[in-house]
Amino acid sequence: MHTTYDWKDPLTPEGVERLHERSLEILRDLGIRVDHEDALALLEEHGCDVDRETKIVSFPPDLVERCVERAPERFTLHARNPDNDVAVGGDDYVMTPVYGPPNIRTYESGRRPSTIDDYERMMKLVQREDPITCTGYNACEPNDVDQEVKHVEMIRRSLTLTDHPVMGSTYGEERAATSLDMVAIAVDDADLSVPYAAGLVNSVPPRQWDTKMVGGLMEYARRGQPVLISPGVMAAASGPATLAGTLALVNAENLSGIVIGQLVNPGAPVVYGALGTQVDVRHGSLAIGSPERSMCTSAGAQMARNYGLPSRGGGSQTDAKALNEQSGSESAFTLQTTLDSGINFVVHAAGDMESHSTASPEKFVLDCERIRHAERTRDGFELTEETFALDLIESVESGDHFLSERHTLEHSKSEHYFTDLFDRQSYDDWQNDGAKDPREKAHERVQAHLEAYERPPMDAGLERDLERFADERTEEILGLA
Amino acid sequence: MHTTYDWKDPLTPEGVERLHERSLEILRDLGIRVDHEDALALLEEHGCDVDRETKIVSFPPDLVERCVERAPERFTLHARNPDNDVAVGGDDYVMTPVYGPPNIRTYESGRRPSTIDDYERMMKLVQREDPITCTGYNACEPNDVDQEVKHVEMIRRSLTLTDHPVMGSTYGEERAATSLDMVAIAVDDADLSVPYAAGLVNSVPPRQWDTKMVGGLMEYARRGQPVLISPGVMAAASGPATLAGTLALVNAENLSGIVIGQLVNPGAPVVYGALGTQVDVRHGSLAIGSPERSMCTSAGAQMARNYGLPSRGGGSQTDAKALNEQSGSESAFTLQTTLDSGINFVVHAAGDMESHSTASPEKFVLDCERIRHAERTRDGFELTEETFALDLIESVESGDHFLSERHTLEHSKSEHYFTDLFDRQSYDDWQNDGAKDPREKAHERVQAHLEAYERPPMDAGLERDLERFADERTEEILGLA
Repeated sequence: MHTTYDWKDPLTPEGVERLHERSLEILRDLGIRVDHEDALALLEEHGCDVDRETKIVSFPPDLVERCVERAPERFTLHARNPDNDVAVGGDDYVMTPVYGPPNIRTYESGRRPSTIDDYERMMKLVQREDPITCTGYNACEPNDVDQEVKHVEMIRRSLTLTDHPVMGSTYGEERAATSLDMVAIAVDDADLSVPYAAGLVNSVPPRQWDTKMVGGLMEYARRGQPVLISPGVMAAASGPATLAGTLALVNAENLSGIVIGQLVNPGAPVVYGALGTQVDVRHGSLAIGSPERSMCTSAGAQMARNYGLPSRGGGSQTDAKALNEQSGSESAFTLQTTLDSGINFVVHAAGDMESHSTASPEKFVLDCERIRHAERTRDGFELTEETFALDLIESVESGDHFLSERHTLEHSKSEHYFTDLFDRQSYDDWQNDGAKDPREKAHERVQAHLEAYERPPMDAGLERDLERFADERTEEILGLA
Repeated sequence: MHTTYDWKDPLTPEGVERLHERSLEILRDLGIRVDHEDALALLEEHGCDVDRETKIVSFPPDLVERCVERAPERFTLHARNPDNDVAVGGDDYVMTPVYGPPNIRTYESGRRPSTIDDYERMMKLVQREDPITCTGYNACEPNDVDQEVKHVEMIRRSLTLTDHPVMGSTYGEERAATSLDMVAIAVDDADLSVPYAAGLVNSVPPRQWDTKMVGGLMEYARRGQPVLISPGVMAAASGPATLAGTLALVNAENLSGIVIGQLVNPGAPVVYGALGTQVDVRHGSLAIGSPERSMCTSAGAQMARNYGLPSRGGGSQTDAKALNEQSGSESAFTLQTTLDSGINFVVHAAGDMESHSTASPEKFVLDCERIRHAERTRDGFELTEETFALDLIESVESGDHFLSERHTLEHSKSEHYFTDLFDRQSYDDWQNDGAKDPREKAHERVQAHLEAYERPPMDAGLERDLERFADERTEEILGLA
């Protein structure tokens, strides 16, 4: 009646081929609208048919395949602290916080528009929680900062409050260039000779790239910094209701972004976006905690592996408006299937709720606890004489117990996952402890993290240069120079 | 840095072999204590060394392997309504409610000892919810019924309030026989010529079977009814802290139970128990929502497949004391990994909380929602001309939307999973709707199920016979005959 779903290879080899072929047809026969003059010129120069009126580009299949071949299978994302460099591709992955929510929901204040102070706190949590290995870009939008310079303020903070790899703005050439200039100062490598900062570029499905995102994409590619191609196709809204049609669009838009990047700078790192989810047609709302989202993640990751590219996708995603049974359930489902799909760049790994609309510090630490849970299984377990422990089993009589054995004390520490956010006390102890909801425990952990937070050391000269650059650029942008 | 965990084949072929070999060593060299005279005689007769003083049995490897070969790879569990027959083995699975909790936690009354009325309500929920395809035995313990006849009362109700396959008592020959006699009447098949009722038999780790459970095991085997061998080894308490040692014990105790059953009745259906979890040594408490539990499930399922046997295990398990972020998270993790491990007999699939100590009607319906979510992925998605929908993609201009297309309306219904218990409204709609917690929505669904419940039709003569038998057996047991 049922078979298991193969998260690593959901598509047959013929399915992979058909999805690839349909995408090439979309690219060649239907075309993609690219609203960027330099990109159109570049594409035309390399053999694409370009309709200058409609800006619709027809991509020749052989150009697409050549470009895909040029892109690297893996890369290392470098941090200003080399201990925090992280490999992306193959079996290696990086995890970032929620990306782009305009709201924050905190234990104290409930839901409200997020501020730059909230952003600072999210960066401090990134620095404190091991599972999150890259700052992301906008863990929450700083609504109280002039929108023209918010990228300067966020990157300034991500570079100084953490010593992890960062992501930058991709919203047009200027913001992309400013982001990367700031990174270059902080890492003391003016040429950005290796990948330090990733940029997430969204297409505008169906079959469209807007001016700003193409500008960002080209700037990152030019400087050899990785771009995450992110075609957020929503089945039933910006794509067909069917997953096949949605995946064909996702794949075609990925390929179009890869071509642009590789024409700008052959061999520049690019990450395939294993995206696609549905709109719940009853409510007209995005459903990011859905099983279809997980299936699109897995199919996209497989396509990426097939192309020899790292993949982005997944996370700890939920449509829940509060931290409850739903947010726990959907976040665990999407996280587990993300890891099982072999995603290499996990955006929205922690702190995401309400269909990407709201960030939550409490959910951030709950998600980190879930990541530790899920990562435990990846270490597997060893079958050795020491772990089989037949001598020990022999020494404990039938029906007796192992609790006080030295072997038990030694191995339980390393072999067992322990959780504090999630309760394992007896019922009575739980009650005596106040019958706390995980929300409350998460809040206590957030507070403890913020109290224990220490600013990572940074060379004083570099920090001065960075701050000066940021201040000057801000003045320029605001026209006060 | 990390690789994905292979839920289907976590062990290498050499690992499977080593685990098997270590288990044979435990069975032969360390032995298993079997506290049942008839079983000891039978085992001795078939070549086991039996120490009559300690009741410790040494199992020869070739006997073990012969018995494993005799047991069937799959079977059908029949219901009194043939529409509800369910296949067990290979890609097919059956799901049952929580098994054995002494407490119930309801929305209205909180946590309290469960009653026979609670049990009735759980059976009505089984009848109403499609994902649950077998009644289980004791979805909650009826504490208000004389403990000597509680099996009569529970089976009477599971057979009349539902028309699904059932499970019966295994606590000694009498209760097992009574259970099966009642089933035989209800299905109108005096000889129980096919499997109708499963029985779950727990060993008492380490390396021990008690009198009652062996009695139950032998009675089920004698009558060709499937037994679920259930060695609930707890790493760090009734087994070594290491998963390898725990799995070796689980496997050895499984094999010992299989031998007893197959010696009683060669070819009788038996289900391998993919059990094993840890005790959290900090609290001395069972941790059934743990990643180690999931790993033991997957390794056990693999051993079962290797032996050509169906497996039992997993479920929607949590250590949470209330329905919250923790219960959602742990239940989703354990359910997803249970399905991905290919378990065939999912005990505790719905309604289980507080480390098997408490049943919950609200969690029952939440778990059913989770099962629907997880099962959606098993249907996969089709790659056809109709689902790729290239004509449709061509007809929708770049940047336009698919919402009002006929293809969207037609396919979203069948291709998308919809949920009502978990919220997908806009934030404002959610607030206007009372900002309900999933607990509240689950309670509303429980109420709706109980109101809509209809007793499935039963032949009046059979029902009269069943009630008469149950009444008479009750009088006999209570010594009133």
